[in-house]
Formats: sequence, C-alpha cells, structure tokens
Amino acid sequence: MRKLYDMNIHDLIRDLREPAKSKIVLLVADGLGGLPMQPGGLTELETANTPNLDTCARDGVTGLSIPVLPGITPGSGPGHLGLFGYDPLEYRIGRGILEALGINFQVGAKDVAIRGNFCTLGPDGKITDRRAGRPTNEKNKAAVEKLRTIKIPGVELFVEPVKEHRFVLVIRGEGLGDRVNDTDPQQVGVAPLKAEGEDEPSKRTADVVNKFLAEAVKVLADQGPISGATLRGFATYPKIATFADVYGLKAAAIAVYPMYKGLARLVGMDILDPGQTLEGQVKKLEEVWADHDFFFLHYKYTDSTGEDGNFPAKVQMIEKLDAVIPDIRKLKPDVFIVTGDHSTPSKLKSHSWHPVPTLLVSDVCRQDEVTQFSERACLRGGLGQFQAKHLMLLAMANAGRLGKYGA
Amino acid sequence: MRKLYDMNIHDLIRDLREPAKSKIVLLVADGLGGLPMQPGGLTELETANTPNLDTCARDGVTGLSIPVLPGITPGSGPGHLGLFGYDPLEYRIGRGILEALGINFQVGAKDVAIRGNFCTLGPDGKITDRRAGRPTNEKNKAAVEKLRTIKIPGVELFVEPVKEHRFVLVIRGEGLGDRVNDTDPQQVGVAPLKAEGEDEPSKRTADVVNKFLAEAVKVLADQGPISGATLRGFATYPKIATFADVYGLKAAAIAVYPMYKGLARLVGMDILDPGQTLEGQVKKLEEVWADHDFFFLHYKYTDSTGEDGNFPAKVQMIEKLDAVIPDIRKLKPDVFIVTGDHSTPSKLKSHSWHPVPTLLVSDVCRQDEVTQFSERACLRGGLGQFQAKHLMLLAMANAGRLGKYGA
Repeated sequence: MRKLYDMNIHDLIRDLREPAKSKIVLLVADGLGGLPMQPGGLTELETANTPNLDTCARDGVTGLSIPVLPGITPGSGPGHLGLFGYDPLEYRIGRGILEALGINFQVGAKDVAIRGNFCTLGPDGKITDRRAGRPTNEKNKAAVEKLRTIKIPGVELFVEPVKEHRFVLVIRGEGLGDRVNDTDPQQVGVAPLKAEGEDEPSKRTADVVNKFLAEAVKVLADQGPISGATLRGFATYPKIATFADVYGLKAAAIAVYPMYKGLARLVGMDILDPGQTLEGQVKKLEEVWADHDFFFLHYKYTDSTGEDGNFPAKVQMIEKLDAVIPDIRKLKPDVFIVTGDHSTPSKLKSHSWHPVPTLLVSDVCRQDEVTQFSERACLRGGLGQFQAKHLMLLAMANAGRLGKYGA
Repeated sequence: MRKLYDMNIHDLIRDLREPAKSKIVLLVADGLGGLPMQPGGLTELETANTPNLDTCARDGVTGLSIPVLPGITPGSGPGHLGLFGYDPLEYRIGRGILEALGINFQVGAKDVAIRGNFCTLGPDGKITDRRAGRPTNEKNKAAVEKLRTIKIPGVELFVEPVKEHRFVLVIRGEGLGDRVNDTDPQQVGVAPLKAEGEDEPSKRTADVVNKFLAEAVKVLADQGPISGATLRGFATYPKIATFADVYGLKAAAIAVYPMYKGLARLVGMDILDPGQTLEGQVKKLEEVWADHDFFFLHYKYTDSTGEDGNFPAKVQMIEKLDAVIPDIRKLKPDVFIVTGDHSTPSKLKSHSWHPVPTLLVSDVCRQDEVTQFSERACLRGGLGQFQAKHLMLLAMANAGRLGKYGA
C-alpha cells in the first residue's frame, strides 16, 4: 500500500535521514512577532536595534512561520510542537499535562494529570466561591499538604501547588483514561459535578477522583475558605515519538522556564540547567557543544513583555537577545535558526495568529535580498510564508541530514 | 480519541470560536483577477482607477487567494465554497443542484436535481440534434409546460425552463440517489442512453427518469424539433453545515444573481433582496447592518465582462465597484475583505486558475507595504498567497471571534 507521506512526515524523515556531524541551533524567541501600536507605525522588532540579527538575515534566508494555520492563535504547547516538527493539529497536549509541565512535574506514560482549583463550599455542599477567595500561596501549600494525606488503593497520587487557588493532581496507575468531564461547574450556587468516564479506563480515573474529592472535603475541614476542590483538564501523557527516533538527533533543551523544559522533555530532548539568565543559557550551550547535535534555546521575555502590553520593554528584550547572537554564532553551528512559537503583539497583550519572522543561516541556504530581521522585511524572504511544522525539514536539509526522496 | 483537525477545520473553529459583536463584510468581485491583453501590459485591475480600493490596500493587509489548488480553475460553486471556508475539494456541489440554484429553484434535502436538454429524435429514436435546433426561450417554455403534465407515482416532479434547449428537472421523494449515468450520449446518430443507478436509492431515481423520458417523447410529439430530452448531472442536495453552526455567525447574502443567492442559501445565509443594482446592494447593507454579523456581497460584472473578453468594460466595472467602497467603509465593519472567487481574464474570456487579489482591513491586521490593489502589488502583501478556504479563519481571527488553540 502506498503511504500518504503528507499524513506522516515523520515516516518520510525516518526513511530519508542520513548520519552527519552537523549541528543545529534553534533559538526560539517566544512571542517574537508583533504589531505597531498605531497603524502605519513600526513593530517591536522593527523598532529594536538588532545589528546581529540583521547580519544573520543578510547571511541567511528569511521568511515567516505560520504556527498552526492562518488565523489560528496557538498556545505555547502547539506553538512549540510545530517548531519541533510535530503537527500541532495532530499532536495535542492536554491542559492537565501542560499545567504539570509548567511546575516542572515529570509526568510519565502511566499518568493522568489534572488541573485543580480550591473552592469554598457552603454547608449544603454548593460552591460559594470557585477560587476559595484566592488564597495566598502559603495557604495553598498548607491545603496541598492536607490533600497529600489522601490515599486511594491501586494508584499513586501526587498533589502539587501552583499558585493562589490552583494545584495539580497527578494520578499514576495502570489503565487510566482521560475522557473524564470537568467537575468544575463553572458557576456558584451549585455543587461540584461528579466525575464520569466515557470509557472503561476513564471510568477508573473518574472513580479515583470521586473518592479523592470526597476525602478532600474531610481533610480540608479546618482550612477556612478552602473547603473543597474542583478538577478540570484531565489529560494522559501524549504518545509522541522522540527527536532521536524521528530525526536521529541527540537534542538538548536549554530553557529557563519549566513549561518549555517540559515540552522539550515530551519529545525526548535532554534537559539542561542553564540557571536563570540568557547569559547562563549561552554559557551552557558552549559547555555542552560537543555532546549534542541539536540545541533548542528558549527565550521567554519577548513573550512576557508582549503579554504585559509593554512595547518598550519588548523592544529592549529583543535587543538583549540580539546582543548574545555573536556568542552563539562563534560556535559555528551548521544551521542557525531564529524564530518564535507565535506572535505576541504588545498592542494585543496576548498571543496572536500573525506569522512569525524567521531566519535560517547555513552554508547551503539560498540567500535572499533581505538584510533586516523584521516582520515586513521577512515578507520578501526566500522561505516565503511556511507552516511551522515544516521548519525541521529545512533544518535537517540544511544540516546535510536528509537524503534524496525517490530515484 | 484525539481529533485530526487538519481533516476537519470546522470542528476546530467550533471549538475555538468566541462570541463577539464584531461585523465582517466579504465583498466578492466575481472573476476579479485578470491578465494583460499583451505581454508586458497591465491587467484590468491595474488599468482601472481605484483610489478607494488602493486606500483599503494601504490601510490593510493584502495577498493573493488560490481558489482550489495552483493551476485549478474553479467554477462558481467551488470558488464561493472556498471563500466561505468549505474545502471545495471536500464539498462538491453537483451540476444539477447548481443549475437549479441558478434559476432560483429552492432545492431541498429530498431532491435530486438534473440538467435537461431538449433534443431532436429521428423516427428510429436516434438523436439527430442534441440541442433540438436551439429553440427560442418561448418554445422552450411551451415544451416545459408539456413535460409538466407528466406524473410518476411516489414522487413529485418539477420541470423548470432555463434557456434555449436547457431545462431543469427536480425529483422530490424519499430515498432517492444521484449515482445515475447521464442519458446524453454526447453524439448524434445513437439513441439516448438508459438511466441506470449504481445503488438502490439511485436505481429508484433511474426508474423514475426512464419512465419520465418515455412519457416525454409522447407529450412532446407536437413540439416540432423538440421531440425528446436527455438528462445529465444528477445531484442530490449536499450535506453541508451552516454558517451559524460552523462560525456562530448570523450571515446575510446581498446578491443580485440567483446562482449566488443559491450558493449562500446552501450554507444557511439569510438571502436578502437588494434589487438589481450595486447601489441597491449597498443600500440593503445599510438597512440590515444591525441585524447580522456577516455580510456577503456579490458583484457579478467583473466576471461577465471578463467572460465577454471585454477588457475596457471590465476596467469600467471595477471602477464602478471602487466608487461604492466608501459607502461600505462608512459602516465601519470590523473586518472588511475584498476578493474574488477566481480570476476571469478578458484575454481568456473564461474563468482561470490565476490567484486572486485580496485585501483585508481591520484594526488588528498587520499592515504591509502595499498601497495599490492589484495582482502585482498584492504579491508583496502580508497575507502571501493563501488557500481561499483559509480566508474565513483570518476573517474570524481579525474579528476577535477565535480563541487560542491549546494552552
């Protein structure tokens, strides 16, 4: 039977990939793309003074990445999966799993991860406050300690604080499903919903959490406004092939924030600890240069400043990133890519659907006329507007790691 | 189980859509794209004086729409379905249905619609003229009246004149199929083919039309050269989700020609009657502005002049359209889109595959450098060259009606 490679690019890559000594650096500036604050103005990237990124644009080939589809705004999960070459419409990371990744909890194949909210229950068992008065993190931790005393036979339970009213519950056991409804009724004046599973494995999960939530009310009796809990976003660990399996790459993630370490761990990258600074990340890259083929560097602050709606701060964070580019290029990566997982325009204070400026430098890229790294300049770039999920194909090709398809 | 959204964008939209008060105007200039009459010359759109469309291009973002696939020339059906966000390769509107829509016949879920041709049969029952000498419309109507006397038990029959030798037959009944061969043998000197159905429902349809055609020969005995009929393009009403269901949009169609009203009705738009003029369409838009979220305006004359091969007339029709743009923008649509369902170059006197100039104006679009609305200028536009079926995603995103995909 013929294979529909368009449906399974990973099989195509496995067939075509060839061994090489080349090294690839993928630098993801989170939320890189932007918008002018006023029509006719400049974007954050256009405003920033970026001599080093501009040199990369001149040396390489540029374009714009469409994270998912035109008009679709991705979360961090789909945004990164696309850049890693996993179709974000095919591979979905459930909310519970992302929440667990975000607090650096190492979820595994037997886990169901769930977002929890502490709530306040009236004497009649009905919710009077869905967020339990937004407790302090200290009160959250104290309540989590209480939940940790709950034992359910046959499974292992992990409860981890997030912040305010939020926590993560992970159930580890055999044959658990995640097709379970949220128990949060999304309104006050009604009791939390009973968990119900849609299939046999999910019924097991529902049975565990119903017992857990009944116990929770008992152990939280002395915790003031925290008198109950609701659960949502049930998610099992996704079945996803590793970077080594798909690309034959020994990959390392050099990220500061737990969520991005977690996403990299999902695809089997080695997670390195660079400390908390960009300089630390570059230093770590230098240290481990000999040990890996592929390096994912994640830079958070282009996104967080955009989410804050702080245009000048985003400009500054872009310039800060620009300053370390020469240190990365000094290592002479065979392929050097700078892109973002999505746009985060300061004007919108949120992720957006707008395509993301992207550059790729290699000895065998076809240079274009673009000499500036910006949303508008990249429109004239040789990569055109491409789907993020195809970026890794370009990385592999430019790294001399993909052979010919067909004779 | 996880959904493969790439296979079903409508499910993705249903999951992500968010309520909003925003209004979207989709202005379709039929057959908008063109070609120069001579190499090196200007296209119709480049020749036309279009100060208002150029202002839109300056204010917004531009690009080129690929109606189906590169090189594929669409009919009106696929051209519009793509713009409405229905993959024209997935949703196919049969010829019989389109013919019925074109004469404003309101086809329904129990109908099989079929194109009919009057023909001349010799004494031996063989076809001597496949078009019955191209009768006048009056003779066509008289012959249709005869056909209307035919009754077949168990079904309702509708016969409607089109023009010259053409008519439409609609069979309404339970459990009818459309997998029936054309009875037109496409040549003279042979008898019309017998209808045969490929499955049980289609066998029922074939049985009805074989009886109908046998009766037709009897009732047409006194109609001169019109002495028989052939049937082709058997088509049932397509199963297609409505705009309200997919997008959550209350949509109105403001079109002059029946075919486009019919296509809009297929996707559940409210069909408004603007009379016969462009001015009437704009006036209707103003009248109903408060009542709908989405407005489809169809302008026919950029296509019909192109089909005529009348370059100066197409230029003039573009300029006429340009003149009403300010009246539309005065209503302050949150998203204003101008595009075409396909190109109709005067040089080719027919629909063509060439990508279609497109502009989108909104407060949150990423402006590009394009300041003229034309085939060449739009090549430098921020929308790039995109598939028509993705246009509605961009419309929804720019209208603030699509939430984030994944966490």
